[in-house]
Amino acid sequence: MNDTGWFTEVYPKHGSAFSLKVIEKLHAEQSPFQKIEIFKTEWFGTLMVIDGCTMVSDRDNFLYHEMMTHPVLFTHPNPERVWIIGGGDCGSLKEVLRHGEVKEAIQIEIDERVTRLSEQYFPDLCTSNTDPRAQLLFIDGIQWVKDAADNSVDVIIVDSTDPVGPAEGLFNAAFFRECFRCLSPNGILVQQSESPLFHADLIAEMHATMRGAGFVDAQTFHFPQCIYPSGWWSGTMVSKTPFSGFRESDAEARSFKTDYYDVDVHKAALAIPRFLKERIAKG
Amino acid sequence: MNDTGWFTEVYPKHGSAFSLKVIEKLHAEQSPFQKIEIFKTEWFGTLMVIDGCTMVSDRDNFLYHEMMTHPVLFTHPNPERVWIIGGGDCGSLKEVLRHGEVKEAIQIEIDERVTRLSEQYFPDLCTSNTDPRAQLLFIDGIQWVKDAADNSVDVIIVDSTDPVGPAEGLFNAAFFRECFRCLSPNGILVQQSESPLFHADLIAEMHATMRGAGFVDAQTFHFPQCIYPSGWWSGTMVSKTPFSGFRESDAEARSFKTDYYDVDVHKAALAIPRFLKERIAKG
Repeated sequence: MNDTGWFTEVYPKHGSAFSLKVIEKLHAEQSPFQKIEIFKTEWFGTLMVIDGCTMVSDRDNFLYHEMMTHPVLFTHPNPERVWIIGGGDCGSLKEVLRHGEVKEAIQIEIDERVTRLSEQYFPDLCTSNTDPRAQLLFIDGIQWVKDAADNSVDVIIVDSTDPVGPAEGLFNAAFFRECFRCLSPNGILVQQSESPLFHADLIAEMHATMRGAGFVDAQTFHFPQCIYPSGWWSGTMVSKTPFSGFRESDAEARSFKTDYYDVDVHKAALAIPRFLKERIAKG
Repeated sequence: MNDTGWFTEVYPKHGSAFSLKVIEKLHAEQSPFQKIEIFKTEWFGTLMVIDGCTMVSDRDNFLYHEMMTHPVLFTHPNPERVWIIGGGDCGSLKEVLRHGEVKEAIQIEIDERVTRLSEQYFPDLCTSNTDPRAQLLFIDGIQWVKDAADNSVDVIIVDSTDPVGPAEGLFNAAFFRECFRCLSPNGILVQQSESPLFHADLIAEMHATMRGAGFVDAQTFHFPQCIYPSGWWSGTMVSKTPFSGFRESDAEARSFKTDYYDVDVHKAALAIPRFLKERIAKG
């Protein structure tokens, strides 16, 4: 935050920056893992920033949280056991628990402070933390996956920060191989996969790495996300069995309200622009 | 551009700003209509800025130009006569002329300097300016439409700046009524309609105003646009007859290369997120 009241995140590799007008800084701390800041902004509501990168705002988090959860959960035939690796703001957990099929949702966040601050500053994202199906663990997700039994989860949601710092190990082959092992035979993993415009190379590399780890099919999907680099974001789903659509009628009949997601938006998110399709095909 | 080499556009109503790292300022002038600046940027290539608002960059203009042209042209059954109101950078004209059905494409740009600078600094966008089917007029689009005969055009593309300054009159009922009159019985008008996240009210208002001017059907579509406010943009198509899909097989068989547009992306762009659907329905 500079002295004229703006928080700015610079994207040095892509010669650009996004700024939010700040009313006041509500909190700042150095946790054992990272620097966490909370701002009250003029138009985006409350904003969480980790190590200088915008993470969550009141205004636009619905896009990310709905898209990191509902597509994968309506793609899996019966998602009973869900892990969220990262996701400390609890927004993904909340969306996951809207699905009646889910019997157990374990959030494995390395930094307890992210969750405690989210409980304080983003109470709307934390309304399901006390759901009896929810478990909040504050341990290393990489270790968790290594230690877990084969065939112990149906859906893994990797809701991490960028592939630098604490989250770096969540983007490599060793991690994906362990996830593959833990997933049930029709298990699906979804991971946030950065910006189609800025990180097409990374997305292509993730496809290759994930397939190398044993996954037989991969689908990237995309959605707007104003406060993330380029304003355009993606997730990538990989599966132990080939994808064959999603549970459209269940998605249509869902009992919960969404602001972005619906059946048409789900299909639309899977329409990959030509330049990205070509980049992924190149490997 | 500040003294550390950044150009910043501030979105004061939405408490945010987007900045591009500039290598050098290539040109600046005050035309009779507006201030035009050209920058060489670090990652976005050449950038045109009008009255402080980013208009076109080498890097991401394909999104806007493909989406403002191919959806409407593949929706019209036989788009022979096309007008582009605004569009002085000539990128929309170029995409329009890729369609073999088009017999006449008239670009009506009020500010000749925009086109002359585009010819100089964005030569890739201007490769079709000498196409025998193209006419470049430098006159007021509002007056042009007023003076034009009934039933004299099949598709009108309003490729304007924001609804302030010179472009304000391109967003009101009087203008839409004149467009309606000029369009052939199955004519379609498409207009850029700002950001779904920042301007949902404007989009809803445009639907109401356009219907009020006589159009019987309206479809908003959306796409990412990194350098525009919120990184997420939209266009709105209105028609004198109800929409009933688009010429999918022609779009599939198109002879020209696109980087964003294809049949799946066309359908996807029409999937309107729930919050916007609800806002439009409210009127």
